[in-house]
Amino acid sequence: MAKVAILGFGVVGSGVAEVLTVNGAQIDSRVHSPVELKYILDVRDFPDSPFASKIIHDFSVIENDPEVNVVVETIGGAKIAKEFTQRALAAGKSVVTSNKELVAKHGYELMELAKEHGASYLYEASVGGGIPIIRPLKQCLAANEITEITGILNGTTNYILTRMIRSGLSFREALKEAQAKGYAEQDPTADVEGHDACRKICILASLAFGRHIYPEQVATEGISEVTLADVAYADSCGRKVKLLGRAIHRPDGKVTAFVAPHLVAGENPLAGVEDVFNAITVKGNAIGDVMFYGRGAGKLPTASAVVADVMEAARSMGQPKYLDWRPGGEDVTHSCDDLTGSWYVRGNAEPEALRRAFGEVSFLARSGAPAEETAILTPPMTRAELEGKYPGQTATVFRVLED
Amino acid sequence: MAKVAILGFGVVGSGVAEVLTVNGAQIDSRVHSPVELKYILDVRDFPDSPFASKIIHDFSVIENDPEVNVVVETIGGAKIAKEFTQRALAAGKSVVTSNKELVAKHGYELMELAKEHGASYLYEASVGGGIPIIRPLKQCLAANEITEITGILNGTTNYILTRMIRSGLSFREALKEAQAKGYAEQDPTADVEGHDACRKICILASLAFGRHIYPEQVATEGISEVTLADVAYADSCGRKVKLLGRAIHRPDGKVTAFVAPHLVAGENPLAGVEDVFNAITVKGNAIGDVMFYGRGAGKLPTASAVVADVMEAARSMGQPKYLDWRPGGEDVTHSCDDLTGSWYVRGNAEPEALRRAFGEVSFLARSGAPAEETAILTPPMTRAELEGKYPGQTATVFRVLED
Repeated sequence: MAKVAILGFGVVGSGVAEVLTVNGAQIDSRVHSPVELKYILDVRDFPDSPFASKIIHDFSVIENDPEVNVVVETIGGAKIAKEFTQRALAAGKSVVTSNKELVAKHGYELMELAKEHGASYLYEASVGGGIPIIRPLKQCLAANEITEITGILNGTTNYILTRMIRSGLSFREALKEAQAKGYAEQDPTADVEGHDACRKICILASLAFGRHIYPEQVATEGISEVTLADVAYADSCGRKVKLLGRAIHRPDGKVTAFVAPHLVAGENPLAGVEDVFNAITVKGNAIGDVMFYGRGAGKLPTASAVVADVMEAARSMGQPKYLDWRPGGEDVTHSCDDLTGSWYVRGNAEPEALRRAFGEVSFLARSGAPAEETAILTPPMTRAELEGKYPGQTATVFRVLED
Repeated sequence: MAKVAILGFGVVGSGVAEVLTVNGAQIDSRVHSPVELKYILDVRDFPDSPFASKIIHDFSVIENDPEVNVVVETIGGAKIAKEFTQRALAAGKSVVTSNKELVAKHGYELMELAKEHGASYLYEASVGGGIPIIRPLKQCLAANEITEITGILNGTTNYILTRMIRSGLSFREALKEAQAKGYAEQDPTADVEGHDACRKICILASLAFGRHIYPEQVATEGISEVTLADVAYADSCGRKVKLLGRAIHRPDGKVTAFVAPHLVAGENPLAGVEDVFNAITVKGNAIGDVMFYGRGAGKLPTASAVVADVMEAARSMGQPKYLDWRPGGEDVTHSCDDLTGSWYVRGNAEPEALRRAFGEVSFLARSGAPAEETAILTPPMTRAELEGKYPGQTATVFRVLED
């Protein structure tokens, strides 16, 4: 018998309560034992909610209730959420989370703490919302050497880029619309500047490559500098601007992980991922490319991933399963600076000078471009080589995703 | 310690031997115990193979060797493969298979036999090649009521359709090319007529909806009647012709499963699945739509799914996990005849007569059409309604996939 406490009755937390209730009968039958929601911790009261009677305000009630064996942490952030997670694990309770910030920053230590106390720490919902990715990645991993992970990991930025590409809205206009629709927060920094995608690629890369990779080890660039000019040039060569989180296993065993806007070829399945959808491509030495696609956020999709983990925790009571990794360190990662690839560069260098500098170079065109503007795709080179050679001032530099 | 025997040293079987060898070190470390290939059963000898010393010809050697605890069945078909699977399970050995025909026809009884003898019967590789779908489907299932599964389940037919759509080859020409490239068998019936897709949708639907669904309960239509005229008309309305396997959970609890060519809107992610790739969309009441995408066949992708199952079998020795379902029956399924939807119809009815018959109807156009040919998209209706109303002779009738 599992008794569940939810920490934080926000969008995801209330979704978890709803899924546990609406799909309760089949959840019980699939776990072969009842799964019952006992408490919901929040600072607020919700007198009109059907769950009003379960609301409590004091975490120690949960901590000290030996009946509670699964704690769902949907508070977010890495402060109070961390404290409550540690206290729940230390009390031997399994913790299920949708909190990517906490897993990306403290996943290793929390998994260690869980092990020490015979509890589970599960985080399927922290990446890709409802898309099953954490366990399938472990499953791909099983028989493969994973070489690369590439993902559209943030629904807000993908929505904004889609509106820019399809409807010609500017970044500011598209952001405003995303906020009006509830897809972007009033302070959109974490999404727009790539921090959310950064946390998610940290989690995927740590799991795939086996050691903790921290957000500060991942060079992160957002989409606030993407203009309609870039979107038009990308379109002129059959590509789309997408914000990608990438993690590449280098031959020396180190991992290069970064988040940045890329030009993605139209034939690449990632190019067709629109609106708030997410998709994650995993490349393995036997499996080739596989892709997982779905709604990367939202109340019920994310809640369904949380509840799947609650069920896993309930089923594996006493014999927890670990989807874990080893400790991090400076030796784990390597900068993306010497990663060779083709670049999209918009700037003011003259065509003749560009030809002299790069030799073979594709010129792009768009209608309404200022006379002095040029945009090109370069041959493969590193960022440093590009910057050394570019004969003028650059306005925008994006990587081109290799096919 | 797991000792493995492979039955059938064909494309997949030899891929399994290769993956077990090439990725051996990490497989052992992930299973926390050595996984060793002991025998390969085949009627042939392979004197030049690096695995020559492991080739045997007598199944009873495997059956009677108490060291062998995992048997990989990559023979195919439902005769000798069935006998060997039964004998292996009866001897308490876990069996891992890529054989969709056997699972679709006899999955229920083989899983029961496995349970009786404390062994596992695992079949991740039977659907979608290397794409992790069986376990993730179970995971989606965990917290969701699954309502629908839609998949491009056969790489051969998807390759043929892609070549027709992109390069204007006729069905015959594209088939010939697929055979030359090794994507289609010399007798292509099982692929081209939809039988392979039918077996796969049976397996997915049995797992998702909980009771065995047999191939003969699934109305199955292939792509041999698809013409370049149909491809052109589909293109004229922004759609692509795709062979889909579908399974729909009806409100009365029954399942409607069928395989047929469909017109799929360009914005649907399934429309972008090209060449030999497969994709499976799962719709759940909480999760919404998720899609799994990758190479649906091929030596190493399929082998990687088999090996992941071998590792699962090795890890869960003595406490097997079941991805199973309850027995089938006539009460499980319901015909697709009364499934309402829009239809694509190419035939010889006159525009005026079509307008009178259907009211609102979209006419499609293509260059080079014979004078008497008309092609339309109808309003939603059942197949019987369509046939009752169509004022002429139909050449082609396909469903239009709802968005």
